[in-house]
Amino acid sequence: MTKVIDFQTDPSRYRHWGIEYDGPIAWLSMDVDESGGLFEGYELKLNSYDLGVDIELADVVQRMRFEHPEVKVVVMRSAKEKVFCAGANIRMLGGAAHAHKVNFCKFTNETRNTYEAALADSGQNYICAIKGACAGGGYELALACNHLMLTDDSTSSVALPEVPLLAVLPGTGGLTRVTDKRKVRRDLADVFCSIEEGVKGKRAVQWRLVDEVFANSSFDEKVAERAAEFASASAKPDVTQGIALSPINRQFATDAVTYSSVEVGLNRAESRAVITVKGPETTAPADMDAFTAEGAQAWMLRCARELDDAILHLRNNEKHLGLIEFQTQGDPELVIAHEALLLAHKDHWLANEVLHYWKRVLKRIDMTSRSLVAMVEHGSCFAGPLAELLWAVDRSYMMLEEFDGDNRPLARVTLSNGNFGTYPMGNDLTRLETRFLGTPEQVEELKNSAGAALEAEAAEELGLITYAYDDIDWEDEVRLFMEERASFSPDAMTGMEANLRFAGPETMETRIFGRLTAWQNWIFQRPNAVGPEGALQRYGTGVRGKYDMERV
Amino acid sequence: MTKVIDFQTDPSRYRHWGIEYDGPIAWLSMDVDESGGLFEGYELKLNSYDLGVDIELADVVQRMRFEHPEVKVVVMRSAKEKVFCAGANIRMLGGAAHAHKVNFCKFTNETRNTYEAALADSGQNYICAIKGACAGGGYELALACNHLMLTDDSTSSVALPEVPLLAVLPGTGGLTRVTDKRKVRRDLADVFCSIEEGVKGKRAVQWRLVDEVFANSSFDEKVAERAAEFASASAKPDVTQGIALSPINRQFATDAVTYSSVEVGLNRAESRAVITVKGPETTAPADMDAFTAEGAQAWMLRCARELDDAILHLRNNEKHLGLIEFQTQGDPELVIAHEALLLAHKDHWLANEVLHYWKRVLKRIDMTSRSLVAMVEHGSCFAGPLAELLWAVDRSYMMLEEFDGDNRPLARVTLSNGNFGTYPMGNDLTRLETRFLGTPEQVEELKNSAGAALEAEAAEELGLITYAYDDIDWEDEVRLFMEERASFSPDAMTGMEANLRFAGPETMETRIFGRLTAWQNWIFQRPNAVGPEGALQRYGTGVRGKYDMERV
Repeated sequence: MTKVIDFQTDPSRYRHWGIEYDGPIAWLSMDVDESGGLFEGYELKLNSYDLGVDIELADVVQRMRFEHPEVKVVVMRSAKEKVFCAGANIRMLGGAAHAHKVNFCKFTNETRNTYEAALADSGQNYICAIKGACAGGGYELALACNHLMLTDDSTSSVALPEVPLLAVLPGTGGLTRVTDKRKVRRDLADVFCSIEEGVKGKRAVQWRLVDEVFANSSFDEKVAERAAEFASASAKPDVTQGIALSPINRQFATDAVTYSSVEVGLNRAESRAVITVKGPETTAPADMDAFTAEGAQAWMLRCARELDDAILHLRNNEKHLGLIEFQTQGDPELVIAHEALLLAHKDHWLANEVLHYWKRVLKRIDMTSRSLVAMVEHGSCFAGPLAELLWAVDRSYMMLEEFDGDNRPLARVTLSNGNFGTYPMGNDLTRLETRFLGTPEQVEELKNSAGAALEAEAAEELGLITYAYDDIDWEDEVRLFMEERASFSPDAMTGMEANLRFAGPETMETRIFGRLTAWQNWIFQRPNAVGPEGALQRYGTGVRGKYDMERV
Repeated sequence: MTKVIDFQTDPSRYRHWGIEYDGPIAWLSMDVDESGGLFEGYELKLNSYDLGVDIELADVVQRMRFEHPEVKVVVMRSAKEKVFCAGANIRMLGGAAHAHKVNFCKFTNETRNTYEAALADSGQNYICAIKGACAGGGYELALACNHLMLTDDSTSSVALPEVPLLAVLPGTGGLTRVTDKRKVRRDLADVFCSIEEGVKGKRAVQWRLVDEVFANSSFDEKVAERAAEFASASAKPDVTQGIALSPINRQFATDAVTYSSVEVGLNRAESRAVITVKGPETTAPADMDAFTAEGAQAWMLRCARELDDAILHLRNNEKHLGLIEFQTQGDPELVIAHEALLLAHKDHWLANEVLHYWKRVLKRIDMTSRSLVAMVEHGSCFAGPLAELLWAVDRSYMMLEEFDGDNRPLARVTLSNGNFGTYPMGNDLTRLETRFLGTPEQVEELKNSAGAALEAEAAEELGLITYAYDDIDWEDEVRLFMEERASFSPDAMTGMEANLRFAGPETMETRIFGRLTAWQNWIFQRPNAVGPEGALQRYGTGVRGKYDMERV
């Protein structure tokens, strides 16, 4: 699986999803093309999915937010007879390398989190209308919706058969959402996760696995009724016109990926990628009408989309680049001005969407299992949303005073009001709150510095960066750090960073990416799942997995 | 490593720890005997430890609570020159099987949690006085203490060098306590965990890694001063006389381990252990004086000690028994009466200790990575602390109505006030609160049932058990469950149970056992750590680990 995976798509290219817009209600149909797998070697039977199916879903969900702000309710359904969704394709999983399995699960988790949060963030509420078998990743898809409706017939059920069938976990949030979202009693959850055939009808409601169950004959009617009810009860303001998410501007070269506001340098010799974000080059739009007219070309939206794509590209296509270095170049005041327009109009639907999108992009960076570093060079614009990068990374270096022959403006960091609540991490704290968990009074003090251009000494003093070095030490210190990082085991880095990045409270999201994912990754290494006699390899052969029964 | 590991010891057999009692202050010295390793093949140099060292430490900590209630402050020190503790012995780790590594970390974590909690639970406060190198597991030992003092000299430092040196994590709570207890800024934590040589002197205080640093010349004096201050400021009531923890009564046979109040049946053919807890046979002591006179023979204490030992024995010495079945036999009213005496005298030091000990034993069960089931048979006494077993297990079966030829009293479940707050889980909720996370009103209602003997129908109706079966179905249903469980991958079970058992809020404890442990287990499977060219295997050979640099 070394094919380059492209995370960009658009409705004209969808093979697996149908979408009908009907005023405030969007009808989303899963209709996976069996022969449309992203890789060779498996067929996507029974609405099973691979990463390609999920890339389209992520695109649908994203476009719904920007292109169809009129949508208040999304009804997720299957277009197949007798099956809702059979989950992740097992032959794909069985054939995939460990790293692909892990990245696949991470991306699908991020997509599910996005549509789960669409209600709170944008007032778009997802209903899952389940007809037919809804198993494994299929039920995990459903669990991320906010209202689950099940048909009461002999073929319709919800199930998490991973453990008995495949010797792996329902790892796309399934176990966590069963206990923490649906709040299923733990012994019933134990039973539920042990039975291949799942749970049907009224019992599914009694066990809190779904919200409602209806006879097949009245099901479609009830779903339509519920969708209409939710739409009319919605507090989401009416917006008739969205903006188009036009294709992003992107060129691939051997050692670089170039976007309009993001440049990715691929330094394979040193196992490092450099993402340089370029600040806006023009003044901020005068008002939200002007911003809306710029649409996908407005810097705040364009930059978020490009940065998002760059991260996904590196995660999935450049797995040997273990260090991602963030740089910025541009005018910090312009960054602040572009952000300020949106902060001042948070109640405008598009400002709201763009700010929430930045939140998601920054979370995607938090969740990226590469060592992350920020280099605050002269001429940089770590300000407002870009300043968040400084606290998303594992550590940061900042140029102190003038450098010989460097006539760019002195490096500085500029905080905005956005840094104090607009872009929370998965733990629901801001990055500054997480950073100063032991000294929360420092966050309060920093509010006084919002708007000021903080040079290296001040930024270091305030704890906003890790190290400040002058011209004499800079090069050596940066080189030493990079050499050191490149000498460490990537696995140990992954584990260390996953633990150090998320101090403080836990949320369902941090539990999914922390606890659940870590256990799944462990299981994805165990012979009982992935060995030649493991259940995942043997699935479909008619022979069950053969297990070493020692308990660890 | 198939030697039977015995978790029972006493001061006369200690090889690695010294303890001096000086009124309210206990001076605990780590003085590991190099040649006293639990297994062959390694020397415990530089105060490095293996499971044997930790078994002694757990014994010290436990005896301090029961035998020396006069102790208010424990000062943990090293008896070696120039080294505090080098952490877990690396050759031991390199040579150990995966399961042993995991069990070793779990037990050491439990011991650290116990002495960390001694302040809140019993008013015993641990000071760590660090002279010399304090690295890896050595610093994790220190981190579990509540006040860290460091000598300011050239050889004294704190360090977590696992990642750079061994390609594994500081997995005994290290990463979690750095971020969540010490609240070290995350970029500084990243730096700290990347430098082999650690951090010394004032910087260790600035980075929040220790609380105080003093010159070598005044260090001992300052430690003594601090210990005296803490002791005199302690709110712990003065108790002059403890009770002796006499050796537990235990016989090993091929298929059984027999204690006075606990019987363990080892059904190797069916990969199952049956733990039968026997209720008290005599009336409860009349008052706390009578209880104190019974001392370690009092049922509430004796049973907890025996159950604790049984769990540890199964975890470490019977790894192929994937299912632990809990049974009880006895008079539920007597169990309630024995518990009631302690509940009525929670402010009595010994009642407090015994109840906290039950809390720890029950937590140890929660953390046991075996499938757990309770069989509520006729004649059983699932009442008060023993009723907790019903909600510690993954599921439970209860006998409904009379069984042919069985003249034991009908099965019933009896709640006590103790079930509503005395034995919280690691997530700081009671087992009932965790169970009814989605319907908290049920916990309130259950308080009305405290004291009532609930037969199967009522217990099922109230959600206290999973299934109630009558004489006709019982045997088949139980057999089917056991066969099913025995057919599943033990790894998938471990991952599933680790996720389903701890719904609701997270604490430092659940993060250590959930997130941190899971990542460590993953890394303990990865070739970069444990493969022939991995860092753990190569340590000490002069050749560094060779890594596959792909990031997962």
